[in-house]
Amino acid sequence: MTPLTKPINKAVDLSAVTEREIFLGHVGGKLSVELTAPLETQRDLSIAYTPGVAQVSRAIAQDGALAKQYTWTDRLVAVVTDGSAVLGLGDIGPLASLPVMEGKAALFKRFAGLNSVPIVLDTTDADEIVETIVRLRHSFGAVNLEDISAPRCFEIERRVVEALDCPVMHDDQHGTAIVVLAALNGAARVQGRDTQGLKVVISGAGAAGVACANFLLTAGISDVIVLDSRGVVSSDRTDLNTVKAQLAVRTNPRGVTGTTADALVGADVFIGVSAGQIDESLIASMASDSIVFALSNPDPEILPDRAAQYAAIVATGRSDFQNQINNVLAFPGVFKGALDVGARRITDGMKLAAAEAILSVLGDELATDKIVPSPLDPRVAPAVAAAVGAAAQADGVA
Amino acid sequence: MTPLTKPINKAVDLSAVTEREIFLGHVGGKLSVELTAPLETQRDLSIAYTPGVAQVSRAIAQDGALAKQYTWTDRLVAVVTDGSAVLGLGDIGPLASLPVMEGKAALFKRFAGLNSVPIVLDTTDADEIVETIVRLRHSFGAVNLEDISAPRCFEIERRVVEALDCPVMHDDQHGTAIVVLAALNGAARVQGRDTQGLKVVISGAGAAGVACANFLLTAGISDVIVLDSRGVVSSDRTDLNTVKAQLAVRTNPRGVTGTTADALVGADVFIGVSAGQIDESLIASMASDSIVFALSNPDPEILPDRAAQYAAIVATGRSDFQNQINNVLAFPGVFKGALDVGARRITDGMKLAAAEAILSVLGDELATDKIVPSPLDPRVAPAVAAAVGAAAQADGVA
Repeated sequence: MTPLTKPINKAVDLSAVTEREIFLGHVGGKLSVELTAPLETQRDLSIAYTPGVAQVSRAIAQDGALAKQYTWTDRLVAVVTDGSAVLGLGDIGPLASLPVMEGKAALFKRFAGLNSVPIVLDTTDADEIVETIVRLRHSFGAVNLEDISAPRCFEIERRVVEALDCPVMHDDQHGTAIVVLAALNGAARVQGRDTQGLKVVISGAGAAGVACANFLLTAGISDVIVLDSRGVVSSDRTDLNTVKAQLAVRTNPRGVTGTTADALVGADVFIGVSAGQIDESLIASMASDSIVFALSNPDPEILPDRAAQYAAIVATGRSDFQNQINNVLAFPGVFKGALDVGARRITDGMKLAAAEAILSVLGDELATDKIVPSPLDPRVAPAVAAAVGAAAQADGVA
Repeated sequence: MTPLTKPINKAVDLSAVTEREIFLGHVGGKLSVELTAPLETQRDLSIAYTPGVAQVSRAIAQDGALAKQYTWTDRLVAVVTDGSAVLGLGDIGPLASLPVMEGKAALFKRFAGLNSVPIVLDTTDADEIVETIVRLRHSFGAVNLEDISAPRCFEIERRVVEALDCPVMHDDQHGTAIVVLAALNGAARVQGRDTQGLKVVISGAGAAGVACANFLLTAGISDVIVLDSRGVVSSDRTDLNTVKAQLAVRTNPRGVTGTTADALVGADVFIGVSAGQIDESLIASMASDSIVFALSNPDPEILPDRAAQYAAIVATGRSDFQNQINNVLAFPGVFKGALDVGARRITDGMKLAAAEAILSVLGDELATDKIVPSPLDPRVAPAVAAAVGAAAQADGVA
């Protein structure tokens, strides 16, 4: 294959963002709670607090459904983590996860106008996490599970979804999967290829890897291979946990065994969600016109300029490179759409609609260096919200 | 005694606040989460979110103390309730308590500039409440326990204080006690009397009643009688729970027994925190120049214009009457002062300093119809915060 010679243009020169600037940008945190109505006069106090507020509380006590209308919880997303799998940093704990959760909450407001509060839990026990969220259930209207390590995240999400009658989504799983599908459709469309025929290799069998594999299968892509730290997740392996064993059954139709190198030979798509590094020689072994998504944050599996020597289309998860595959394209609109229509859960149909909507805003702008919209594109969240809301109604969960 | 003929001027004509106006004032809730820095460019995103945020999280993982500086939690108060004793409405549950908790959070911002988030718990089990708050410990910098019924509230507060190394206060207890002491000092000062010599009757042995009794004793008032629904809390009773039994030992130095009527004959001060009603004939039986605080919300034990026929000074808890004894005079400044100096707990010294500071702002304005500042007086919270911070340092908890 012919190495690309055109360098990747960095959207932002990272070297220009200093450590000092980053820390200054975090002093005092990134969120503030504000009043939505004035509290200036005795009259204001009589309405918003005693004695007026008692009438509103009495009304909700008689009809709980009124809480949607008269409290902030209907537009409030809890961003819940135990700090066990934060970005690519790993298990740094709840305290150190706070800046990331505040950033997430800030993105909810910025892109979807939703209120959001970080809830960081000082326990990694699945039972305790589920129990705690269930006890907090009336404090918010939706739950964004975040940065919880696999395989606990699968069980925790399943149990919280079952327990609560509101939108719940582990974003590292489904947010990632939605944006990856959108980007993959974008890349295939640029190349004039059919997404469903692509040979896909996913490096990483954690939250994002498992969810991406399952979601690409749901979207009709049949040739998906998943790698964990020991190689191809295949049915002949005896060291697989339940989640990976299920994956081995659903994926790898050609029965590939062995290492990353075995999986990548002739593959069309590499999706890295592993926090591991990958040598450029392996990228070179892929099929021509290959597509490389090196999504680990903050350190991609391979730097874009190196991958671009061999791959036709390259994307990362970072703000400072082009083709940023960032969950921010999905989660604000997904939760907004779900809350807008009062959805009781988030279905596959809603997620597929979100992936389609993300790409839909690009139209003719679609290009090798623009396979998804910019995370700052103001058209994305409203389009996603509208599509997700409609899908929720079509799926009968709203 | 001579009945007062001067009517109580209502600060606000409640009849002018319509039900429609109250409900409209609550549509969508009363709080909003906002960003403290722009998220407009890729550069902003690189600083506040990936990849920049990873540096801040890494730094906190290495030194947890940095979380105070680089997250919002250092200025964030969780308002935590189980909805079991909301205002005078009783056990209306977590969902229906939300408008009150949002109002409380709004007051934290309005008067002390602190961020605050309602956390309503779907359990009334003391072990579960304590456990849940402890699991959430890194999510905020202080805990305002709110509207939790007695006697569970005493144990819950004690255990949360022991478990957390940050300011924790059950406001229904201590906020009320602080403002009651401030008001009682104000009333006594107007009358040229010594507070410590007053005969005080407290109606209600719940959260507020117990805390008021204990705090008035701490402030040097020796003649305090507490009433529960069965009459005077006295050592000869065999039906007292642990908390009331302790109270019976510390209070009632004259060994009064019997009913509300027996306690009130010749008393100087009536403090109602019971949600019960009291007949004006009992107020008439008090000593001359009597002081009546009818603090139940939304319905005072006796309406101020009726009490004022016999009492020299009358106060309620409501915004729409003069002499409003409202916790808002205390809690914003108490938490601000404690957080300003990084206090690890809230001591009696800090609470006494708060009571003195509330009254201090009035100076020559002190009058029969102004025994405490208005809840809207902008001088109060800064004065309380400064006094509380200084007391925390003096008490060695900061």
